[in-house]
Amino acid sequence: MNAQLVAVLGRGVVDPETPVLYADDAGLTRGDGCFDTCRVVHDGSSARALHLDEHLARFARSAELLDLPVPDLAAWRKLVATALAAWPEPGEASLKLILTRGPAHLSGAPTGLLLLTVVDGAAQERARSGLRVVTLDRGYRSDVFATAPWLLGGAKTLSYGVNVAAKREATARGADDVLFVSTDGYLLEGPTSGLLVAREQELVAVPTGATGVLESVTVATAMAAAWAAGWRTSEELLRPGDLSTCLGTWLVSTVRGVCPVLELDGAPVPQDAGLTARVTEWAGF
Amino acid sequence: MNAQLVAVLGRGVVDPETPVLYADDAGLTRGDGCFDTCRVVHDGSSARALHLDEHLARFARSAELLDLPVPDLAAWRKLVATALAAWPEPGEASLKLILTRGPAHLSGAPTGLLLLTVVDGAAQERARSGLRVVTLDRGYRSDVFATAPWLLGGAKTLSYGVNVAAKREATARGADDVLFVSTDGYLLEGPTSGLLVAREQELVAVPTGATGVLESVTVATAMAAAWAAGWRTSEELLRPGDLSTCLGTWLVSTVRGVCPVLELDGAPVPQDAGLTARVTEWAGF
Repeated sequence: MNAQLVAVLGRGVVDPETPVLYADDAGLTRGDGCFDTCRVVHDGSSARALHLDEHLARFARSAELLDLPVPDLAAWRKLVATALAAWPEPGEASLKLILTRGPAHLSGAPTGLLLLTVVDGAAQERARSGLRVVTLDRGYRSDVFATAPWLLGGAKTLSYGVNVAAKREATARGADDVLFVSTDGYLLEGPTSGLLVAREQELVAVPTGATGVLESVTVATAMAAAWAAGWRTSEELLRPGDLSTCLGTWLVSTVRGVCPVLELDGAPVPQDAGLTARVTEWAGF
Repeated sequence: MNAQLVAVLGRGVVDPETPVLYADDAGLTRGDGCFDTCRVVHDGSSARALHLDEHLARFARSAELLDLPVPDLAAWRKLVATALAAWPEPGEASLKLILTRGPAHLSGAPTGLLLLTVVDGAAQERARSGLRVVTLDRGYRSDVFATAPWLLGGAKTLSYGVNVAAKREATARGADDVLFVSTDGYLLEGPTSGLLVAREQELVAVPTGATGVLESVTVATAMAAAWAAGWRTSEELLRPGDLSTCLGTWLVSTVRGVCPVLELDGAPVPQDAGLTARVTEWAGF
């Protein structure tokens, strides 16, 4: 069992071995809610959550897209501070915030939960040393979310079953991770990560919005730092074949960090250790 | 608050006012689980679940598509019997079975829950008197699930956020319900219902499989009865425009029953009260 801390909005830290959710919570019965995940670093004396403002802002945007009550960010901040103060584990942890529409028998009472979990350092290290990735059809055109907001593009929802199934499919194919591809042939994102690609003095990310791709805090952080370092930054729809002529490709996420893509569907993808180190630093890892 | 009963697989009936789910249950955090819903009728002396075998079979198929441990149907049957014996409310209820991959901190321990909830008879009556329906793009081609099983077509999963959002969109448009349409223009199903269409002595349903459309127990029941009554039955992909030349169109589901579609995107859809009565009877309502 991973070391874990559980806190409930409006209650504070609770015993992680005590159930906290009603059976009729819409977050469970309908995946009707959103979440966000921060990286936590404990330096031995105290724990802090990185990019908390950006994650809270995205959490609030997800809630808005789901037409959930606006999260009280001051209350969430206080809950995060309480949880971090109570968190004893040195090293890295993931901090997950969850907001659901709440139990059916208590109309209009959303559920707010916080989960702190120790990061599996060995798995993180393996991923950062490189990933064999397979492309999987996401089933959507790259522009469908422009006209179909009910498909919840760009929201980090609890209805994450397809992402979990895609990861299982990757494992079944002997790969480490997935890059979703639109039905019109464009690279989108991983099930739990964003995509970054380097060309000569240029860092490329996938456009959000119509693609349904989630606004990645890690992608944005790396892009801003690359721009500050004098690189060009651009948003562009890329095809799988485009990666073979790039200088480097990475799947990036809040906790796992910057992971070079070594192989796509069995074919090697160009990589450069120096470039990976640079992008890793830009992303704040 | 609706009258409610909660039971937990392996424990039996529990106090519905007591939380039963850990904060790190994958059913909540990732929508990683499946469910099924039966109709329960209490005749004043005892309660029974209709078509329980068919619903348990579909529940097991959903679990298989999600690569969950095979549900122990004998244990589920026993839990259902225990819950029904303890259920005091006369009239109709919905019986929901939920299976999740379980809490992250207890690896390999799936969560099994049962929820019994009194049906809102007035809302059911309104729906059975007729629905104003809007079409919404489901974002998928009608054949994408043939090659992309990770999209979980045909599985009744807990990742139901898009279905809930589509219902909200219908309400925002002043409609009662939704018919999802594929990107190539075919009618699929409602967010919580299947589609039936009548032509002269013929009942038509939407093909499952490649379309991702859920195998509806109510559709199957009505189709079998129509066939036994000498009607032709067929599976066919229909376009919204096809409904204007049909004799009747219905959204059907386990608890709400057979609901005639009176309007599609504001245009009247042919209806016949005698035919609705007939399909209702065929469906077992």
